Amino acid sequence: MTLLSESARHYSRTHAERFRQELHDLLRIPSVSTDPAHAADMRRAAEWLVAHMRGLGLEYAQVMETAGHPVAYGEWLGAGPDKPTVLVYGHYDVVPAEMADGWHTPPFEPVEKDDKIYARGATDDKGQLFIHVKALESYLQTAGHAPVNVKFFIEGEEEVSSPNLVPFIKEHLNMLMADVCVISDTSMRTMAEPAILHSLRGMTYLEVEVFGPTDDLHSGLWGGAVHNPALALVEILGKLYNADNTIAVPGFYDDVVPLTAAEREMIAKTDLSDEQYKQSTGVPAIWGDTNYTIRERISARPTLDINGLWSGWSGPGPKTIVPAKAGAKLSSRLVGNQDPHKIYDQIKSYIESIAPPTVRVEVRLITTGKAALFPFDIPEMQAAAHAYEKGWGATPLFTRGGGSIPVVAEIADLMDIPVVLMGYGLDDDGLHSPNERFSIEMFHRGIETAIVYMEELAGLRS
Amino acid sequence: MTLLSESARHYSRTHAERFRQELHDLLRIPSVSTDPAHAADMRRAAEWLVAHMRGLGLEYAQVMETAGHPVAYGEWLGAGPDKPTVLVYGHYDVVPAEMADGWHTPPFEPVEKDDKIYARGATDDKGQLFIHVKALESYLQTAGHAPVNVKFFIEGEEEVSSPNLVPFIKEHLNMLMADVCVISDTSMRTMAEPAILHSLRGMTYLEVEVFGPTDDLHSGLWGGAVHNPALALVEILGKLYNADNTIAVPGFYDDVVPLTAAEREMIAKTDLSDEQYKQSTGVPAIWGDTNYTIRERISARPTLDINGLWSGWSGPGPKTIVPAKAGAKLSSRLVGNQDPHKIYDQIKSYIESIAPPTVRVEVRLITTGKAALFPFDIPEMQAAAHAYEKGWGATPLFTRGGGSIPVVAEIADLMDIPVVLMGYGLDDDGLHSPNERFSIEMFHRGIETAIVYMEELAGLRS
Repeated sequence: MTLLSESARHYSRTHAERFRQELHDLLRIPSVSTDPAHAADMRRAAEWLVAHMRGLGLEYAQVMETAGHPVAYGEWLGAGPDKPTVLVYGHYDVVPAEMADGWHTPPFEPVEKDDKIYARGATDDKGQLFIHVKALESYLQTAGHAPVNVKFFIEGEEEVSSPNLVPFIKEHLNMLMADVCVISDTSMRTMAEPAILHSLRGMTYLEVEVFGPTDDLHSGLWGGAVHNPALALVEILGKLYNADNTIAVPGFYDDVVPLTAAEREMIAKTDLSDEQYKQSTGVPAIWGDTNYTIRERISARPTLDINGLWSGWSGPGPKTIVPAKAGAKLSSRLVGNQDPHKIYDQIKSYIESIAPPTVRVEVRLITTGKAALFPFDIPEMQAAAHAYEKGWGATPLFTRGGGSIPVVAEIADLMDIPVVLMGYGLDDDGLHSPNERFSIEMFHRGIETAIVYMEELAGLRS
Repeated sequence: MTLLSESARHYSRTHAERFRQELHDLLRIPSVSTDPAHAADMRRAAEWLVAHMRGLGLEYAQVMETAGHPVAYGEWLGAGPDKPTVLVYGHYDVVPAEMADGWHTPPFEPVEKDDKIYARGATDDKGQLFIHVKALESYLQTAGHAPVNVKFFIEGEEEVSSPNLVPFIKEHLNMLMADVCVISDTSMRTMAEPAILHSLRGMTYLEVEVFGPTDDLHSGLWGGAVHNPALALVEILGKLYNADNTIAVPGFYDDVVPLTAAEREMIAKTDLSDEQYKQSTGVPAIWGDTNYTIRERISARPTLDINGLWSGWSGPGPKTIVPAKAGAKLSSRLVGNQDPHKIYDQIKSYIESIAPPTVRVEVRLITTGKAALFPFDIPEMQAAAHAYEKGWGATPLFTRGGGSIPVVAEIADLMDIPVVLMGYGLDDDGLHSPNERFSIEMFHRGIETAIVYMEELAGLRS
């Protein structure tokens, strides 16, 4: 380690409290990308990030428009053309959060308790993206320069599957061009076991709606001769799975690349016991395709989940109607080489093939994302491993992630550079759930690891 | 017809406009009994009715407490003990209504258009109960007295299946005692075909909730090894019916009294064609147990409907969760001699028997109501038929109603008197639906018919 990174790390430790207060300011903005009512908050979050980057001396930082929510972009190119350029991708948007979901404190009023920051977006992804901003600041405020060039590409549509990301990258390919992309938007099992993800699942997200009568009907006056749309929906969705918990959609598994023995051995290093999984989730029993281990099921195998159901009356007490319609949101996590659009076509065809003529069924695509897979013996991945050893204090595992970050496959395809997923969250941070949280200690260790990683990357060309 | 009833009918015609304005005042009160937020509106509606009855000279009219929403009670006993007493039952409570459901005008701001009054409660049951109040007023304001004694028993919990009705009747049996009970809370097919209902279906209303993980889970991090509660719910509910559209709950049909050939002949008089049913409801095709005609299915056979479904995310866009829970409201319309509690036990046992061990399932009873059946050759029924002939201008049909009015079986059981169901609504009034409406002409013809019925009842003892 050099004096340069040592000074930066020291700075980051002495300014820890301020760094967190700044993160709180960002967490206070309810930048919920899934809800049109929060459009103004989205822009406010992007503007906050740009103002913050300008404050660090990134004079060309700017809010950049897309067809949807804007991108916050900033760059520091002071290391010069001889040094590598790292593109840091993150997202400032979050999923919805309401007190009624079970939050103990308001989701957009950050609270520090038991070494954790509680707030929607704390770990996914505001807290994690901010690590890189603070790492760069630590160099600039000590040496006045950093060992590599840094570009921040912070989008606002990750939680809605980044519909405008590909056009943005294509349009600004020169501006974004880099030698490696780093993303911190994933997690490790425990603080002692940092992980670098080399694989992510893709996604097909769709909506099914069943229509029956024109309006809700009085169930006493009309019930008995109308196919209740909620009944038709559950009859259809009740056929999504086979009795052995495999997905019943014809052709669904056709393009899945089988796991090799070596891969299964690697995955086994992070497998969970039934008890661990039950304790982490609270489920009464394990479920799924028993031909695969728990870790394989949740990271290396495709899924099909019902994310939401709605029909008729769900308020207190009885309401005696035959509802006019019923709907469901469905999403499938995909693995290589499943094509998200082909999977959508297969699910749509299957649902239409089992839909009865007594109702009208609509299937609509919401979003898709490709799966991604990188080798982990390349220099940029190995440099990351060294950064953890020096900056974090533990050797990382290379693992497969069960989630989907659409940008990963897109950046790899469009820019032809490796994407290194250095996640600083914990598996049980409760992202997308009530009481989302982020470890304060890991926030600060993440900053130090990011500082070292810049140095390691610079070393690849020294 | 006597001069007495002629004068009353004339009065009702000349005061028609005011009668409707008064009804509008009652319709403006959002007395939604299913929603605790409307408790104050419930009391306001009861107080409005009592004040109105007092204004007609019913000096003992009063708001009477129950364990739930209050009863509005009033009596006029000036006909004396030699004359029959008629108990008029009605309900001032309504089901929920929101603009978002598809109302063209605000549900609690009555609008008159195309000879109809549009408002929640217009036909169910504020408009219909008000007919009897205005019939009595028409006698009192002309002759100064009516041909029979009249008691108004107007409850506020019909739409939540009258949980406090039986205790109230038992406690006030002497006060309520009468020779016949009249209820206007039902409908006819067309204005030319008035109907007297001699049968109503009972009800068992329950809620099923499926619990999986403690909180909503990120579907990417955890999906694949947890039995998605929404999936478990649809798998369970998908087994409610057999392939021939009969209900799969073991024992469900055991106590159903078979329809006789004579009854089926009577029901056939009001049967609907496939086209008529499709046009009235908007469904693409008829559904149900093909061993029975449409009218039999919707009035004389038991049903099992899903009234509501909820789970996870139903807002705009995607949310990639495995929901913590999923739920449904279910209700069964029952016929003689099905026992509502036995049916609940059967449904609960069936659901529990098919629930997998990978989730926790809760089944909860919400309400029950008994089915009712009366002979239609008794004097009180025949007097009602004559009242329609003279007051309405058409001979009524005696029909079976598919809906449930819990009070009917209870009054019959507890007071040992016949209940005559003289409904002044139309089948397509849209009760419990958006844009509920009540025919203005039928409102006024109903008042005249009610006036004549009082005279016909008096004649039974003359």
